[in-house]
Amino acid sequence: MLDYTPPLRDMRFALAELADINLISSLPGYEDAAGDFVDAILEEAGKFASRVLAPLNASGDHEGAVWKDGNVTTPKGFKEAYVQFCQAGWNGVTSKPEFGGQGLPNTLSAAVMEMWKSANLSFSLAPLLTDGAVEAITLCGSDALKAKYLPNMISGKWAGTMNLTEPQAGSDLALVRSKAVNHGDGTYRISGQKIFITYGDHDLTENIIHLVLARLPNAPEGVKGISMFIVPKFLVNEDGSLGARNDVHCVSIEHKLGIHGSPTAVLSYGDQGGAVGYLVGEENRGLEYMFIMMNRARFAVGLEGLACAELAYQKALGYARIRVQGRDMGGGKASVAIINHPDVRRMLLTMKARIEAMRSLAYTVAAWTDIGEAHPDEATRKKHEAMVDLMIPVVKAWSTEMGIEVASLGVQVHGGMGYIEETGAAQILRDARITTIYEGTTGIQAIDLMWRKIIRDAGKTLTAVIGEMQAFNATLGEMQGEHFQAMRKSFEPAVGALAESAMHFGTRCMQDPKGVSVGATPFLHLFGIVAGGWQLFRGAIAAQKKLDAGESDTFYTSKVLTARHFADHDLAAARGLAYTVKNGGVAAIAITDEML
Amino acid sequence: MLDYTPPLRDMRFALAELADINLISSLPGYEDAAGDFVDAILEEAGKFASRVLAPLNASGDHEGAVWKDGNVTTPKGFKEAYVQFCQAGWNGVTSKPEFGGQGLPNTLSAAVMEMWKSANLSFSLAPLLTDGAVEAITLCGSDALKAKYLPNMISGKWAGTMNLTEPQAGSDLALVRSKAVNHGDGTYRISGQKIFITYGDHDLTENIIHLVLARLPNAPEGVKGISMFIVPKFLVNEDGSLGARNDVHCVSIEHKLGIHGSPTAVLSYGDQGGAVGYLVGEENRGLEYMFIMMNRARFAVGLEGLACAELAYQKALGYARIRVQGRDMGGGKASVAIINHPDVRRMLLTMKARIEAMRSLAYTVAAWTDIGEAHPDEATRKKHEAMVDLMIPVVKAWSTEMGIEVASLGVQVHGGMGYIEETGAAQILRDARITTIYEGTTGIQAIDLMWRKIIRDAGKTLTAVIGEMQAFNATLGEMQGEHFQAMRKSFEPAVGALAESAMHFGTRCMQDPKGVSVGATPFLHLFGIVAGGWQLFRGAIAAQKKLDAGESDTFYTSKVLTARHFADHDLAAARGLAYTVKNGGVAAIAITDEML
Repeated sequence: MLDYTPPLRDMRFALAELADINLISSLPGYEDAAGDFVDAILEEAGKFASRVLAPLNASGDHEGAVWKDGNVTTPKGFKEAYVQFCQAGWNGVTSKPEFGGQGLPNTLSAAVMEMWKSANLSFSLAPLLTDGAVEAITLCGSDALKAKYLPNMISGKWAGTMNLTEPQAGSDLALVRSKAVNHGDGTYRISGQKIFITYGDHDLTENIIHLVLARLPNAPEGVKGISMFIVPKFLVNEDGSLGARNDVHCVSIEHKLGIHGSPTAVLSYGDQGGAVGYLVGEENRGLEYMFIMMNRARFAVGLEGLACAELAYQKALGYARIRVQGRDMGGGKASVAIINHPDVRRMLLTMKARIEAMRSLAYTVAAWTDIGEAHPDEATRKKHEAMVDLMIPVVKAWSTEMGIEVASLGVQVHGGMGYIEETGAAQILRDARITTIYEGTTGIQAIDLMWRKIIRDAGKTLTAVIGEMQAFNATLGEMQGEHFQAMRKSFEPAVGALAESAMHFGTRCMQDPKGVSVGATPFLHLFGIVAGGWQLFRGAIAAQKKLDAGESDTFYTSKVLTARHFADHDLAAARGLAYTVKNGGVAAIAITDEML
Repeated sequence: MLDYTPPLRDMRFALAELADINLISSLPGYEDAAGDFVDAILEEAGKFASRVLAPLNASGDHEGAVWKDGNVTTPKGFKEAYVQFCQAGWNGVTSKPEFGGQGLPNTLSAAVMEMWKSANLSFSLAPLLTDGAVEAITLCGSDALKAKYLPNMISGKWAGTMNLTEPQAGSDLALVRSKAVNHGDGTYRISGQKIFITYGDHDLTENIIHLVLARLPNAPEGVKGISMFIVPKFLVNEDGSLGARNDVHCVSIEHKLGIHGSPTAVLSYGDQGGAVGYLVGEENRGLEYMFIMMNRARFAVGLEGLACAELAYQKALGYARIRVQGRDMGGGKASVAIINHPDVRRMLLTMKARIEAMRSLAYTVAAWTDIGEAHPDEATRKKHEAMVDLMIPVVKAWSTEMGIEVASLGVQVHGGMGYIEETGAAQILRDARITTIYEGTTGIQAIDLMWRKIIRDAGKTLTAVIGEMQAFNATLGEMQGEHFQAMRKSFEPAVGALAESAMHFGTRCMQDPKGVSVGATPFLHLFGIVAGGWQLFRGAIAAQKKLDAGESDTFYTSKVLTARHFADHDLAAARGLAYTVKNGGVAAIAITDEML
């Protein structure tokens, strides 16, 4: 069993104090996202996550999705949960109201998504993929396609998938070989094989709308010759009823390390002459369309890191409270619960601190996304849009790397029991392990951060963000007490380390692009701890202000101590990482392939 | 498939240049361990590991050990491999020759064990546990017990197990409840339940000799009331033939995250009135006897970290050479193998550097063990014995933590394929994940290091070791070239950071034992990178001397570059870790259980 208790108070704190949900609710279109409505959404999502989705998490892992004769069956209970999920209106929370969506701001939906992902990561991928397909059609599809597909996808009657990967084309979509041929009647015929298709087939919905990248005859080589098509599993008649079965078939599903409840399909297109497809947008612009959605997808995967960490923490904390083993270091003959042992406390508080840093950062970036999309002032929009672009690879890669580390700490807190599958701690680690890989590996995020988001921008946005960090450092310096002093003692040099490292990229990237790129991932980690610390410490200040104002709630004391632990344990690594960024590019490039 | 190529050249290099196998072969009893004999042992072990054990690694994981009606069947091929293993004489490589063992030095057997563990960790646990039981009986048993059990255990005809853990007694053996009652005829009757018993039941041998910790009536409470018993699965008649089935039964085996080929048994003693047991040594000294073997067992688990890392590296390197994806950063239109991408090179070289640091350190500590046991000079023996005691928790915990990280990097290099079980990379991660838990968790090693090995010793041995590191730092300073300068630039402050951190323990341990203990694990990591760097850089100097002497072999160039990478990437973290050790104990102690 993997019980899940939604951390509603932590979420509300992050939404109110860091993401400034009140500001978000002042943006055009998001007026509802305030006060009681926010609380109601969080409460209801929390109930659904803990009561409906969480009970299926371990059983779904154990049972797994099953492929038989071309059809995939999801684990017991998934279909019923999915029906309830859609009935409750959760499927379209961020989709546009004109097609039936709820139109919630990203800030609030971040918290909601976090809950689905903690409660049942495998389940959560079904609506996530539909959501991605909905967004692609919304942004790039014709009005006819929108009208035909969006209402049923947003309601959850039909699901959606994203078909990018092929055996020879993973991170490198220039190598996509699937073919599309114009049939002359407004349709295309698609053929080829797609792999790693999340929920590529399943029994949750009567139809599945595949978004497929394929290449037209005579299309330019590489990424500029890829087009995007809608390929429904069942063709849709003019009246909206389902027509013939299309020529796309699930030929197998993968046997994976984790997310067993979520089918990962191999789809074969065109075995009987070609699957009927409909062009989305213009020919040869498919990859561009995919990139439009990339930020959103990568942000969502970043939330998965946070969500796995939260679940791992709850599980480990619960076990540490009841597992009696060893004497207290302070004395006494009786054995005590292991939560009393300093090293167990270190692990638990490290987990908690990283979780709160991840959440603080993710919700803040979600708020920037809303501001970037909906603020009436163009300059404010542009500024926040740029900040979001900069931070997405950090949220994605740092949070997922931390998610794995925290899940692994969760196993460790359990000792031998952590290694036994029935306990559940191991499942969280297995599930989390995909998150640094899909939607672009950590290495790809790091290269994106360094080359596209910093160097191409001549460091403009980064400099602005570092400026905000420095201003915050001054605020931090005004706070009293040893804990805030400790935060500043780590934060100030860490911001300096970040700035120096970025400067190193700027000065060395032309002469030594490969050597500099060896530092991309250490730099991303550095950025993660500094940005995470920044937002976490903002929260600590907000908490201290409550305490100073007379609140005696230990919730706020905990926020301060948790932030302090992060400063001492995670942020203290900053200067070492900067050293690695600046000096660590020599050997990996100098060594030849044969010497490896 | 998990192919394994024994890294014989790296092993020979570490044995010759770091562990000084020539010195070891000058010790009394180890005269054979020289020249051609060493090469022959390594060659033959390498063949056995790669040809017999490695082909059963993935299939053993997939099939798993199976429990049915009280009996455990090992995966297909394990039994045949075990017979071959014993026939070839591998079962008793370190056991005393008087009972049929080979009497190899620890230095050489470290390399041999590394191979078994890389090739098939699950299989390797069977002889490992037998070896532990053999050692316990050898060191603590009566001549009669030795004569009765050792020859068949050393030959491999019978296997051995260690029965410590009970549901309520894991790391805390004071809580052991299994009972032993003196039957008045030289035998005892044992009852109780033992869990997590590696190879607690299996079909590899006709008999299994369990070593069981249990408590006599009226024994003192806690760890001073535990005795050790031999409880054979089948009683052994006076003539050595097998007698009646003893009253110990395997009631189930665990469903684990990894090491699926290795059965982890729940054993029930005395369901039919009491299992017949024979006291080993004296009453109430069982835990003490276990501790005698602890160093050896923990060292062996440290090797498992190294071994998993080596296998993960070979697999990742092989994939990186053939997986074509993305353009070379240096230009060109064609897609290239991913080994060309800087971030992939960073991952591979980080894996390689950590592996070589672990191996350098482990083999060196193995050599110290031999010197501590066999050197004719008592002062030399005592000095090395103390150094081994100090280093064992570092070898155990640091190598296993690194083993997991390297195995996870191995998954990462594979991208999406790493998450698919058929690839094999995920199995290595799953298998490695146990190693930071069993034989004492990382936290327990860290506390052992800090309190028992450093503070109780008033820092004497540590100071001596740091003295040797400082002397080596001077040697490093005499080396020419940027790579050695970089090594020194990391090593010098890292040794300082280690010394300062230890000083912090010394000055603060009485006033603030809990706060100081929060730093134990970060300190252990710090010790690991400094000690690993030390031995790795010794190897780099040895390699550079070969190059300076005119050798043009790139093997030596690779050693230098690998060491340099470790300096830039791993050792650079030292000062941050020292900061954490010195400052990071406040929040985890100040925070209350309720605030977590």
